[in-house]
Amino acid sequence: MTEDSRLKRDVAVIGVGQTKFGEHWSQSMREMAVEAGVKAVEDAGISGHDIQMIIGGNMSSGMFTGQEHSSALLADYLGLNPIPAIRTEAACSSGALAMRVGILAIASGMYDFVAVGGVEKMTDIYGPQATTALSGAMDYDTEAYFGATFPGIYALMAQRHMHQYKTTREQLAMVAVKNHENGFLNPVAQYRKKITVGDVLASPMVADPLRLLDCSPITDGAATVILASADMAKKYTDTPVYVKATAQASDTLSLFSRRDITTLDATVEAARRAYSQAKLTPKDIDMAEVHDCFTIAEICAYEDLGFAKKGEGGKLMQSGQTTLGGKIPINTSGGLKSKGHPVGATGIAQIIEIVKQLRGDAGKRQVNGAEIGMTHNVGGSGATAVVHILSRNR
Amino acid sequence: MTEDSRLKRDVAVIGVGQTKFGEHWSQSMREMAVEAGVKAVEDAGISGHDIQMIIGGNMSSGMFTGQEHSSALLADYLGLNPIPAIRTEAACSSGALAMRVGILAIASGMYDFVAVGGVEKMTDIYGPQATTALSGAMDYDTEAYFGATFPGIYALMAQRHMHQYKTTREQLAMVAVKNHENGFLNPVAQYRKKITVGDVLASPMVADPLRLLDCSPITDGAATVILASADMAKKYTDTPVYVKATAQASDTLSLFSRRDITTLDATVEAARRAYSQAKLTPKDIDMAEVHDCFTIAEICAYEDLGFAKKGEGGKLMQSGQTTLGGKIPINTSGGLKSKGHPVGATGIAQIIEIVKQLRGDAGKRQVNGAEIGMTHNVGGSGATAVVHILSRNR
Repeated sequence: MTEDSRLKRDVAVIGVGQTKFGEHWSQSMREMAVEAGVKAVEDAGISGHDIQMIIGGNMSSGMFTGQEHSSALLADYLGLNPIPAIRTEAACSSGALAMRVGILAIASGMYDFVAVGGVEKMTDIYGPQATTALSGAMDYDTEAYFGATFPGIYALMAQRHMHQYKTTREQLAMVAVKNHENGFLNPVAQYRKKITVGDVLASPMVADPLRLLDCSPITDGAATVILASADMAKKYTDTPVYVKATAQASDTLSLFSRRDITTLDATVEAARRAYSQAKLTPKDIDMAEVHDCFTIAEICAYEDLGFAKKGEGGKLMQSGQTTLGGKIPINTSGGLKSKGHPVGATGIAQIIEIVKQLRGDAGKRQVNGAEIGMTHNVGGSGATAVVHILSRNR
Repeated sequence: MTEDSRLKRDVAVIGVGQTKFGEHWSQSMREMAVEAGVKAVEDAGISGHDIQMIIGGNMSSGMFTGQEHSSALLADYLGLNPIPAIRTEAACSSGALAMRVGILAIASGMYDFVAVGGVEKMTDIYGPQATTALSGAMDYDTEAYFGATFPGIYALMAQRHMHQYKTTREQLAMVAVKNHENGFLNPVAQYRKKITVGDVLASPMVADPLRLLDCSPITDGAATVILASADMAKKYTDTPVYVKATAQASDTLSLFSRRDITTLDATVEAARRAYSQAKLTPKDIDMAEVHDCFTIAEICAYEDLGFAKKGEGGKLMQSGQTTLGGKIPINTSGGLKSKGHPVGATGIAQIIEIVKQLRGDAGKRQVNGAEIGMTHNVGGSGATAVVHILSRNR
């Protein structure tokens, strides 16, 4: 297998914007995307007319709202016609794919300024229908068709992890507690409410061992970042954040086809590629936003990204090193669990949190002296994984 | 507005493969995509392991089959894990967007070989539901919600074109007749059947003035091309086909918001950008595959791409110059009308026809001495338009 080669041009983030995440009964998909887009353009200090292309991550606006063709719709409502608009999709990692395509587009030399966003409007349909739409992320013919749901799939991963590595029910709960602590400090989070391990253990069972407070919610939201060629970035901002790696890998959609259901091989491979591109190791990462769609997913991410040895993700959580103030704070934004998980927007919201941290703009969530951050966005139960590494230094 | 800049690296097509287009009751989406992918890899004479990324155009597998996350699924079923896989979508131009992203990815320097495909499985759901899924390409809130369908939208364009420019009902029919003549010669076409102007005029009314034989069909199919950096292409084939332009533009999704409903401004702008990138004019194009989702769409494309003056598209059709053997043969493949229109695959199938023509491999459809060809793929009623120019010469 060949390796990723070096990009022809460096790329930087020069602006960010997002809506509050939550249940937005009075805002449509297009209205949320416009809000996030305008905020990002204002933050970048550029004119909308400088933007040359839109890439928009969206998982399933067709099944959620009847509307496909969402990126062209947003170019239209943002007043940016006739620039090109492309939707990217790989389930819950659709946002990170928009970021990747935006980076490739700038590195190609064809464009200097690209708006990269993600949006999902999930509350317009009846709850069980949302579960059906989300099931489109798994292998429909061999999983969804037979009644599998995502809580069920991740519950299998959790059961096996607890059996094989003695990961405890309490360690899973600590992920949710930590992320709610962080989300409490994040003005755009869906749930700004602290919870305890006892709350998690007392919450209703969804799919054994996962309870309600182990699960990320159904969320409406949009997020946008403005990318520029690194050579131009300094003209627009004193604090550009540089892309050091953009890596992606694939695995089977169906969980039962995997070598090991407690390891996301796609995450392992995407991380390996990212570290190789950036010439860094896990020890060099100051903080990360990881894909905690369920609490077990964050435990696995610790291991698959190289922050803990295989099987020791639960112990890393329990050690406190991934809390704000720990050695490697994880999900300072509140993560998918507390900040919310509008699936197509999540990958971009993760980028925004790291950019804010590296700029020193994260307020009460600020990680002191942060230089290098990572994002980790997963599609389905790990068929797609995308890892970005961002840095204050070019 | 800024212009497209030159790509950092040239890109070539080194392999093509597609399924027959039609109603494939015994083949699923994944099976069709694998068939097309394997054929393209074999045609390129490379190993599957040389491929570094998959980009797959798909409009709406979620609404058609329940399956999102289609490109990762195809990486899986093609045995290509762990390479990255990205789905692109802009309604019926999803395939051409996959082509664009593949080109940008190679030009970026990160990848040398990218498989670019498109697939749509449209016959798994009840016919009227297919119309509903396709309506996701228009502005849902202002068009589809109120009952608009695509035949209705294009019928409005046809009515206005006939009123304003005296385009005749017979000229529209001639588009279908010509494309069936061509499709009759194409082994992969859905309808290999010649028809007459009388047949079109006697076919059932769908949306006045458009009759059944003015409309492209519901189709299953997949198409794949293998892209390589131009510097590597000659090692794999004696007949690489070079990408001279990749251009895209956006317009309002809703037809009623347009400046003029007989002109696709997105096509005009994408063509302008394409000619500028390639340093060519309409006179330099030897043949084109254009987006004839309805007969009126091909008439408008003649005008918007610069092959006819505004309002004279019908006359150009009537002149016979766009038939095989004419001055500028259009839709030698049979077009969407006769070859079929599996929406996500169409943009790639257009590329394949031009590649076959430029290689001299088009059999009875061969355009003699063809050097430069164009593809024109449209999303919705013109919210997205994508134009590629391909050449035998670098």
